[in-house]
Amino acid sequence: MINIGVIGYGYWGPNLVRNFQQCKSTSVKCVCDMHKSVLERVKATHPGVDGTVWTEELINRPDVDAVVIATPVSTHFDLALDALKAGKHVFLEKPMTQTVEQSERLLEEAEKRNLTLMVDHTFIYTGPVRKIHELVTGGDLGEILYYDSVRINLGLFQHDVDVLWDLAPHDLAIMQHVVPHKPVAVSATGMSHFDGEPENTAYMTIFFDGNCIGHIHANWMSPVKIRHTLVGGSKQMVVYNDLDPNETIKVYNKGVTINRNRESVREMLVSYRSGDVHIPQIERIEALAVEVAHFAESIENKTPPLTDGKAGLDVVRILEAATEAMGMQGRPVELT
Amino acid sequence: MINIGVIGYGYWGPNLVRNFQQCKSTSVKCVCDMHKSVLERVKATHPGVDGTVWTEELINRPDVDAVVIATPVSTHFDLALDALKAGKHVFLEKPMTQTVEQSERLLEEAEKRNLTLMVDHTFIYTGPVRKIHELVTGGDLGEILYYDSVRINLGLFQHDVDVLWDLAPHDLAIMQHVVPHKPVAVSATGMSHFDGEPENTAYMTIFFDGNCIGHIHANWMSPVKIRHTLVGGSKQMVVYNDLDPNETIKVYNKGVTINRNRESVREMLVSYRSGDVHIPQIERIEALAVEVAHFAESIENKTPPLTDGKAGLDVVRILEAATEAMGMQGRPVELT
Amino acid sequence: MINIGVIGYGYWGPNLVRNFQQCKSTSVKCVCDMHKSVLERVKATHPGVDGTVWTEELINRPDVDAVVIATPVSTHFDLALDALKAGKHVFLEKPMTQTVEQSERLLEEAEKRNLTLMVDHTFIYTGPVRKIHELVTGGDLGEILYYDSVRINLGLFQHDVDVLWDLAPHDLAIMQHVVPHKPVAVSATGMSHFDGEPENTAYMTIFFDGNCIGHIHANWMSPVKIRHTLVGGSKQMVVYNDLDPNETIKVYNKGVTINRNRESVREMLVSYRSGDVHIPQIERIEALAVEVAHFAESIENKTPPLTDGKAGLDVVRILEAATEAMGMQGRPVELT
Amino acid sequence: MINIGVIGYGYWGPNLVRNFQQCKSTSVKCVCDMHKSVLERVKATHPGVDGTVWTEELINRPDVDAVVIATPVSTHFDLALDALKAGKHVFLEKPMTQTVEQSERLLEEAEKRNLTLMVDHTFIYTGPVRKIHELVTGGDLGEILYYDSVRINLGLFQHDVDVLWDLAPHDLAIMQHVVPHKPVAVSATGMSHFDGEPENTAYMTIFFDGNCIGHIHANWMSPVKIRHTLVGGSKQMVVYNDLDPNETIKVYNKGVTINRNRESVREMLVSYRSGDVHIPQIERIEALAVEVAHFAESIENKTPPLTDGKAGLDVVRILEAATEAMGMQGRPVELT
Repeated sequence: MINIGVIGYGYWGPNLVRNFQQCKSTSVKCVCDMHKSVLERVKATHPGVDGTVWTEELINRPDVDAVVIATPVSTHFDLALDALKAGKHVFLEKPMTQTVEQSERLLEEAEKRNLTLMVDHTFIYTGPVRKIHELVTGGDLGEILYYDSVRINLGLFQHDVDVLWDLAPHDLAIMQHVVPHKPVAVSATGMSHFDGEPENTAYMTIFFDGNCIGHIHANWMSPVKIRHTLVGGSKQMVVYNDLDPNETIKVYNKGVTINRNRESVREMLVSYRSGDVHIPQIERIEALAVEVAHFAESIENKTPPLTDGKAGLDVVRILEAATEAMGMQGRPVELT
Repeated sequence: MINIGVIGYGYWGPNLVRNFQQCKSTSVKCVCDMHKSVLERVKATHPGVDGTVWTEELINRPDVDAVVIATPVSTHFDLALDALKAGKHVFLEKPMTQTVEQSERLLEEAEKRNLTLMVDHTFIYTGPVRKIHELVTGGDLGEILYYDSVRINLGLFQHDVDVLWDLAPHDLAIMQHVVPHKPVAVSATGMSHFDGEPENTAYMTIFFDGNCIGHIHANWMSPVKIRHTLVGGSKQMVVYNDLDPNETIKVYNKGVTINRNRESVREMLVSYRSGDVHIPQIERIEALAVEVAHFAESIENKTPPLTDGKAGLDVVRILEAATEAMGMQGRPVELT
Repeated sequence: MINIGVIGYGYWGPNLVRNFQQCKSTSVKCVCDMHKSVLERVKATHPGVDGTVWTEELINRPDVDAVVIATPVSTHFDLALDALKAGKHVFLEKPMTQTVEQSERLLEEAEKRNLTLMVDHTFIYTGPVRKIHELVTGGDLGEILYYDSVRINLGLFQHDVDVLWDLAPHDLAIMQHVVPHKPVAVSATGMSHFDGEPENTAYMTIFFDGNCIGHIHANWMSPVKIRHTLVGGSKQMVVYNDLDPNETIKVYNKGVTINRNRESVREMLVSYRSGDVHIPQIERIEALAVEVAHFAESIENKTPPLTDGKAGLDVVRILEAATEAMGMQGRPVELT
Repeated sequence: MINIGVIGYGYWGPNLVRNFQQCKSTSVKCVCDMHKSVLERVKATHPGVDGTVWTEELINRPDVDAVVIATPVSTHFDLALDALKAGKHVFLEKPMTQTVEQSERLLEEAEKRNLTLMVDHTFIYTGPVRKIHELVTGGDLGEILYYDSVRINLGLFQHDVDVLWDLAPHDLAIMQHVVPHKPVAVSATGMSHFDGEPENTAYMTIFFDGNCIGHIHANWMSPVKIRHTLVGGSKQMVVYNDLDPNETIKVYNKGVTINRNRESVREMLVSYRSGDVHIPQIERIEALAVEVAHFAESIENKTPPLTDGKAGLDVVRILEAATEAMGMQGRPVELT
């Protein structure tokens, strides 16, 4: 049994506590939140779980094996570092940290101490994303040509992070998981429509090695909610509509083949393929339950989790580059 | 009666000839096409219209008042210049020319000779775009904050122009028509998935003066056809789905207002507005018929048409900058 | 404060208990269920509420003012009658009883004792249905011409009632609420695809006085879930799609007017109207919360609730006639 | 080469003439229409085709082998009978005739004279219906349990026929083609909302031998256009949405299986199956072209066409029964 301490019981915290309680390999010992009224709510729902307003207290409890951090991103680094230094495994909300440097420091610390460091990229554990990953790795899509995602809706406005840091981590995590190419540069553009506020409408292009391209549209000012991702492959293409519960994943047997005439380079034969569409049934499970069990397994087996610190760092690296590029109206920033 | 000569009878030519024939103020005298078999088709459908394979012959006919040019873009400049020099009004397919310089030269020539130079931005004359324009100019949307357009589908691949020059002129023409701001810089990114071919998947950001931003996603490699435009205003927002004949334009009474607390700058009150949706009925007319009549009126009244050479130049200017920016992976290019 | 006893804690019971607990005018004293394990669940969630396996015990508690009955329909009559005889107000699940005679008997008993008898037609208290009712009574739709509803999906099969008794009560309750005409006869057809089981696919036509017609399609064997209702009016028409959270109610300014030529009766002028569509914003509230408060008010003010015993009887009357008609392959049955 | 005479050049006539001209095995010799201006239009479009206002003239032309009848239904019988008596093959619009008796008389005459009598049930030759037929006959759907069709819109009102005779022939023709059961009885209900006019909103149930049921909803007064058909099978089910060009046919691997416990009849195991959805690509062809070629083949090979007089009669038989049943508010009428 892995004993868990959870820091932060805001929007996502209750889901974390519930899942860590329901998981057979984990048990929540303590929840930390700065609001006493929140701790009372914890007590009412989970009578056996202690509450504290002191993060050090939670982190240093001898009966806590792993610390789950669900606080604002600006506090992630300090809390995670403290937890690692105290010898605890860490489960960290996304985005992992505010800078690449911080993420690298956490990786280093976790590695040095042989501790599990996992980032909560929940989408990776959902049925639809697992299905896309299966299609890509099984070769069903052929070579991956592009990844295009639109994640827009009205609000909620954030004041400390721009819309890319708020919404794009989901897409970046999924993209990195399913696209078998290495991102090498980032361009981004965006706009703030309210003085002194961060960008609320933004676009990001990710260049990969090879001829694959990624793009994300994130927007807090759209009248309609859209969660629409295209994964273009040379054999088949996927449309992933996260808002359509019945047809979340559609696999299109469509494509283009260009054959050049050897005699005359200028003559090109373009053949279009347009076949059936397949809507695979998607497993309906709570992704967080799968993820929590995976965290426990990773600790027990001392194996790196699917969404380890490295995956979290990769997302932060792109976000950091995007912020820089956005400040230069799209001038690309290389990823090193 | 304005007598018309039409050069090019490929995909769009037959629509042009039919509309110029049906218009009460115009009459087609001659059609020029390099294929004799095509001219025979013209003869069969329009017995009274002459055919020729020589562009000079058509341009120099004394009974031709205006020349309509529906040929590949690489020939636009020479043909239009010849026609203007011969004292003919010109109706030119989009994109107007291959370079800004060429467009400027045509504008100059037309102005010098007091001739009408019109570019065929057909969308401007459609019911939906006229409705959006009416909403913007009537103040219904408030201040225009962003313009976002997705124009993607499978094919048709072009070999001489990239996907932006092929698909984006539509969106740029509409955007320029409805957004009351001046574009000042362009960033663009894209990818060619076939060696030696132009980019088939591309993204373009347009920066306006003020805090308005535009973005276009153009793609020949999408498994699904999407024609989806968002116009974000401070009061209301429009979703324009050109593929939905029943709900082409939806007006959302949605928005965000940010009020700052004077006492404490850090406290911000964000209020979200979410009201009714209105689907105005859109007039079903053939846009090209409206446009052709407008061309005739412009000639008769010596007034500049809605989509004059200036409008055509504005589109070419952005395309030229986008090509340059795309070659630099998104580095922005200022519009001068 | 009205004290409540709830009989039956199956699928719907927990929602009832939660809402009667949250309502300021009501308080749940006791829950009755035949399964002890269920009563333990009640205890865990609502520590202050007693549990019993004996319905008489609950009904006869002096501190219970009103009895809520959420058991299988076959038990409704006996339980409700016992409760009324014990001087308790009654809140009864739908369909009210198995026969018209039973419903009439309950009405009589409640009236004699001046007790409130309410049937849980929850849909009547939802935002969309309240909006339709508002449109009808406000005259926006003109004269109501037809009511057509499709309520189909895969499962859940019932063994004791056919698909009409299972699904149609929702539509009948809504229809009776919004259609200002009196139903006079019913035809129905249906099919059982499994030997010895009740009909799983069925259709029902309701004839009203005047030239209004109603129709319901109920089906447990549809591959797709549809909840789609049309309300045809002479001025405007409503499409109510209960599965579309953003566009639940659409009001179409469409219609047909037929004007006869006085000179020649045979000449008829049909004019079609096709105008804008309006999507009113619908209040998002839990209908059951509204309904529970309405029950409390009805008791306190001694006023008949919106969905009183009479409304429940009207639904049962149509269902009973439909069963009879369905047994005769559609032969109509008059409602008396 | 089969020489064709076409009677009636209204809405559908031009499509018939064009297709019979384009077909390699047929050639249109003459068109008959009562309006001279219409005949001039024929002349302009098809210079080699004669025109006449006299049906006898067309029917009795020695160079006409087959007569195509596209006139109002009230004239079908007389014209078709005359043509058959003159020894001509007949291609007849749907519905075939106004009564069963008339259809039977035509069948008899055609058989006696060894002439081809075909009814224009165009839908049978479309890609989607051919695909459904293929799925049914290939056993992919299992046993056919129900056929449910909705064909509603704001329609062209007819004054001489009710909405069932106007719209349901399409559905009845498709249903008869794909459902491998024999219809035995019909119930129908409907309403006319305008005094003295035929029913504009109507519902029809078709009972088959075995436990299969069919239902059609036809309506000229719907604010939305719906063309939605469900074919329920024991193995798989089909949703056919004729208005969705990209997903016209969807095959759902969904179903219900009921296994009874032998020990205890009352215990029933219901198992629900919910698998993938498949969207087969549908051939895009003009159905009428296929149909016209099939007519020619049937004449040449002396084989009965797919939509022969018998198929036309079967549709009329159900319509006649439906009219009778509708007059009795749903009382069923047996098909003999």
